[in-house]
Amino acid sequence: MRYAVLGTGTVGRTVAAKLASLGHEVTVGTRDPQATLARTEPDGYGNPPFAQWQPEHPEVRLATFNEAAASADIIVNATNGAAALAALEAAGADNLAGKVLLDIANPLDFSQGMPPSLNPVNTDSLGEQIQRAFPQAKVVKTLNTMNTLVMVDPARVPGEHHTFVSGDDADAKKAATDVLVSFGWPAESIIDLGDITTARGTEMLLPIWLRLWGALGHADFNFHIAGARTGA
Amino acid sequence: MRYAVLGTGTVGRTVAAKLASLGHEVTVGTRDPQATLARTEPDGYGNPPFAQWQPEHPEVRLATFNEAAASADIIVNATNGAAALAALEAAGADNLAGKVLLDIANPLDFSQGMPPSLNPVNTDSLGEQIQRAFPQAKVVKTLNTMNTLVMVDPARVPGEHHTFVSGDDADAKKAATDVLVSFGWPAESIIDLGDITTARGTEMLLPIWLRLWGALGHADFNFHIAGARTGA
Repeated sequence: MRYAVLGTGTVGRTVAAKLASLGHEVTVGTRDPQATLARTEPDGYGNPPFAQWQPEHPEVRLATFNEAAASADIIVNATNGAAALAALEAAGADNLAGKVLLDIANPLDFSQGMPPSLNPVNTDSLGEQIQRAFPQAKVVKTLNTMNTLVMVDPARVPGEHHTFVSGDDADAKKAATDVLVSFGWPAESIIDLGDITTARGTEMLLPIWLRLWGALGHADFNFHIAGARTGA
Repeated sequence: MRYAVLGTGTVGRTVAAKLASLGHEVTVGTRDPQATLARTEPDGYGNPPFAQWQPEHPEVRLATFNEAAASADIIVNATNGAAALAALEAAGADNLAGKVLLDIANPLDFSQGMPPSLNPVNTDSLGEQIQRAFPQAKVVKTLNTMNTLVMVDPARVPGEHHTFVSGDDADAKKAATDVLVSFGWPAESIIDLGDITTARGTEMLLPIWLRLWGALGHADFNFHIAGARTGA
């Protein structure tokens, strides 16, 4: 399968590397590949520049958002949430039409200081914004409720724990589930919450996630819904 | 210990009955006890009228918010969130001063239809609003992330699962923890998230809680933080 992973940060890199390790053809999309490769300083989160990461992952291509999306069967939105709509606009509605679009981003808003708030929130979500802006894309919100290392290696967290899928298209949610299973998620650990409006619920897990990260002192944790199985 | 439980709905009744069963002196507070007892119809959620519940719990007194709070050592806010500040105002700042105030309510806003949204949300919380309005009360947000039957009987949900405490006063959080342990919560299942601003995180669990309730078809579930123990 050919994947476009939009976003060159830690989440994009981690998911791209995982998909490549599973034998997929992976292109990371960015606004300006030359600018991305020209950076020599760590980003705002302390991640090494992409030019340092890429030689360790020679099988992952770097291209514009548009080129990456055009050649892909499945698109992963791994941008920082504030940049998501612009990145997808650059990817091109035609290049998203009819395709599964896994939205794993969160609309964190750092403009009011730390901890970040969410924007949109409550009566809207980034997942819904993307689905409205690109009605022909098959948006599935998933994996946005955990650290990126857990996304691609759920066994890092001991015991049972869950991930969620939200989306309007049943086939797209099935395709998303297949991706999750290939990442190591047991099928029974994937909860289908319903349509894309349920992305509000998963995006709104971020505030407690951030506080738990602080309280626990590590990011190798995840949400488990105790009692889910009895009624599932 | 003398408890005031503010709110005559299902949550207030369930918590009041549990506290009474543990040997505490419990008064349920309401705006107008005569009006509460005069109701003969089920409430908007289909709960039987209070006058039907009370004879089954003769040890639980009914009084005004003010009377209930005045005589209490610990106050429990079990109002519906939209009514909380008015109820606490009626209880009286003097009657709350220096006391532990367990805020187990959620600011659900049904004005925009179903599912309810939250108000306040994101950059504020009901817990913080209450602490700001009554700075001499020792507010602890807790138990607001689950069905009320689970609050007082955590073993209803199989396996390990968590509850949270948020508050600015360490002694009050210790007192809240003692109440939770008396309800059946193992001490290691209680996560201290930090100050009262962390109530934003637990209140923002409500949207996914409501969607899980729909997806699972039952309310006997709860959040468990897998991996919490390794760093706790």
